[in-house]
Amino acid sequence: MLDIVPLKFENDRLYILDQTLLPNEEKIIELVTAEEVWEAIKKLRVRGAPAIGVCAGYGLYVSVKRYESDDEDVLRFVEYVRKTADYINSSRPTAVNLSWALKRIVKVLEDKVANSDNLDLDQAKRVILDEAVKIHEEDVAACMGEYGLELLKPGMGILTHCNAGTIATSKYGTCLSPIHLGQERGYGFKVFCDETRPLLQGARLTSWELDKNGVDTTLICDNMASIVMKNGWIDAVVVGCDRMAANGDGANKIGTSGVAILAHEYGIPFYMYVPTSTIDLNTPTGDEIPIELRRGDEIKEMWYEKPMAPENVKTYNPSFDVTDHKYITAVITEKGIVRPPYEINLKKLFDKE
Amino acid sequence: MLDIVPLKFENDRLYILDQTLLPNEEKIIELVTAEEVWEAIKKLRVRGAPAIGVCAGYGLYVSVKRYESDDEDVLRFVEYVRKTADYINSSRPTAVNLSWALKRIVKVLEDKVANSDNLDLDQAKRVILDEAVKIHEEDVAACMGEYGLELLKPGMGILTHCNAGTIATSKYGTCLSPIHLGQERGYGFKVFCDETRPLLQGARLTSWELDKNGVDTTLICDNMASIVMKNGWIDAVVVGCDRMAANGDGANKIGTSGVAILAHEYGIPFYMYVPTSTIDLNTPTGDEIPIELRRGDEIKEMWYEKPMAPENVKTYNPSFDVTDHKYITAVITEKGIVRPPYEINLKKLFDKE
Repeated sequence: MLDIVPLKFENDRLYILDQTLLPNEEKIIELVTAEEVWEAIKKLRVRGAPAIGVCAGYGLYVSVKRYESDDEDVLRFVEYVRKTADYINSSRPTAVNLSWALKRIVKVLEDKVANSDNLDLDQAKRVILDEAVKIHEEDVAACMGEYGLELLKPGMGILTHCNAGTIATSKYGTCLSPIHLGQERGYGFKVFCDETRPLLQGARLTSWELDKNGVDTTLICDNMASIVMKNGWIDAVVVGCDRMAANGDGANKIGTSGVAILAHEYGIPFYMYVPTSTIDLNTPTGDEIPIELRRGDEIKEMWYEKPMAPENVKTYNPSFDVTDHKYITAVITEKGIVRPPYEINLKKLFDKE
Repeated sequence: MLDIVPLKFENDRLYILDQTLLPNEEKIIELVTAEEVWEAIKKLRVRGAPAIGVCAGYGLYVSVKRYESDDEDVLRFVEYVRKTADYINSSRPTAVNLSWALKRIVKVLEDKVANSDNLDLDQAKRVILDEAVKIHEEDVAACMGEYGLELLKPGMGILTHCNAGTIATSKYGTCLSPIHLGQERGYGFKVFCDETRPLLQGARLTSWELDKNGVDTTLICDNMASIVMKNGWIDAVVVGCDRMAANGDGANKIGTSGVAILAHEYGIPFYMYVPTSTIDLNTPTGDEIPIELRRGDEIKEMWYEKPMAPENVKTYNPSFDVTDHKYITAVITEKGIVRPPYEINLKKLFDKE
């Protein structure tokens, strides 16, 4: 069974597995201040939309738990929590789980304060922690593996891009969850991982995670997705999502839209794994999703002993792209499988509540 | 003007620019033995279908020029040349220019020997050198830039993959030739280079070569081709070719087929630059083109201080893929522009001769 813990909260302290050091070093670090939480999310020490949400929840709590004041004015504390949440939220713009988790906690705190006569500071802090734990527990429970497995058959070849696995979430991952589950049940999947430039999450994280769980894993460069599909080796593509708009357009790691178009052209189903916390009905289409741009030296310099391109050459380094809903065969959530038309069927997920 | 010499033959010696060291070091090395020629082609010190052909020609000459024998038996020398050519030809299987150049020289030598009564060894060696020079001169003359420029307009955004530029050929390159030519004429192209994993020819060679010539150049990872097209920044895609089959299917650097499918989906013209020496009418379709597989550590280890993936993880590392002719808008040769149906129109190029 899987023995990877991307994040834990123990003895009132928040620890994360520093994913920037994988696969060569498995180092656990503690996040103590808001600045450390911000930096860990910004630098991708913790990453993957669901895990970012969980980390932001606990991170908000550890950032404000040392707050003290003589007058015990809870309203001033709420204001402090709001500012801290805004600051942590500024670390990455695309993944909606970050702002979703922070807003949810602030809202619960505000409601509690409004509806209680004499909440003290310690009680207010407890409200934050309780909600952070709830978000974490929901993410663990939000395993979409069983639904995902309905779409796959034993022996299938599966292509994945980036990492939406165990270490991007609290337990089995999103798009890797049916693969881990299938592995436990002897499905014998053959998984191809795009290395996922520039930060190589596919090579460093996905191939490491799948290999650790005994899955038959083949690593390829991103530009080899077309040939493995043409070779007839891929029966399904599974990817995660960082924000899905109301019409089903999904932002995910840069390159996902290209993989989706290739799958479409080769007639291969393309499945996007989207916890409902990642669905943002307030964003009408993919055009309104902000795309994070990162530093060009991630392309030109990182990982290399010497820069691999001349200093003058410009770069363009978007961290995400938007996959048009027309290329998405099905959306898998923890509440079930959603098929087109997404505009109608995604909304139904929330109407049921 | 361009000041890059990928290969030169001077004072009876063959020198190449070692492209594996670019862009950090511009080092010229001499190739003396057949083993050195084989290694330089295998290791991509010299690369690009046309340049490989030219290098193979001179390389065959320098490899056999020290041959001596007491009996001056020219037929035995021809046998030695044949064996040496076979050996050099075994360095890379996909680029047809390699076998094309070697076969052409051996054939000319055989014909000359058959038709001359008393050719001596020195004369036979001279036949080889003369033909190698001819191949080189033809490649210099085979500039397809003027034809290519007919397809482009000033200010266009152009995407290219891998390197089919000056250093892949003898002068302006194939697919980069209209860009260099346009640069001289103030066209103001905006060029996006795919970095081209695993060996980064786009980052190390194309962006270096274009930057050196003053072209507005932006480097991207391979998986960003989809987003730059979607952003509306690309008006045309230009790529080279390592072997084109009779039906117009073209083998080129791994990832080219994916770029072609994306261009097709986004409605962007896709132009393949193919010297006639790269067209192989004896290969009916792309299915019959052998695809070179390279070592997996090019993906897992090269360029990095530490391996970027676990040791157990398998890799698949094809050096080329085949772009289906249906995605190719036009084929540009040194004899003019060829449009579909390629099956008929490629053959016409040779019928004219």
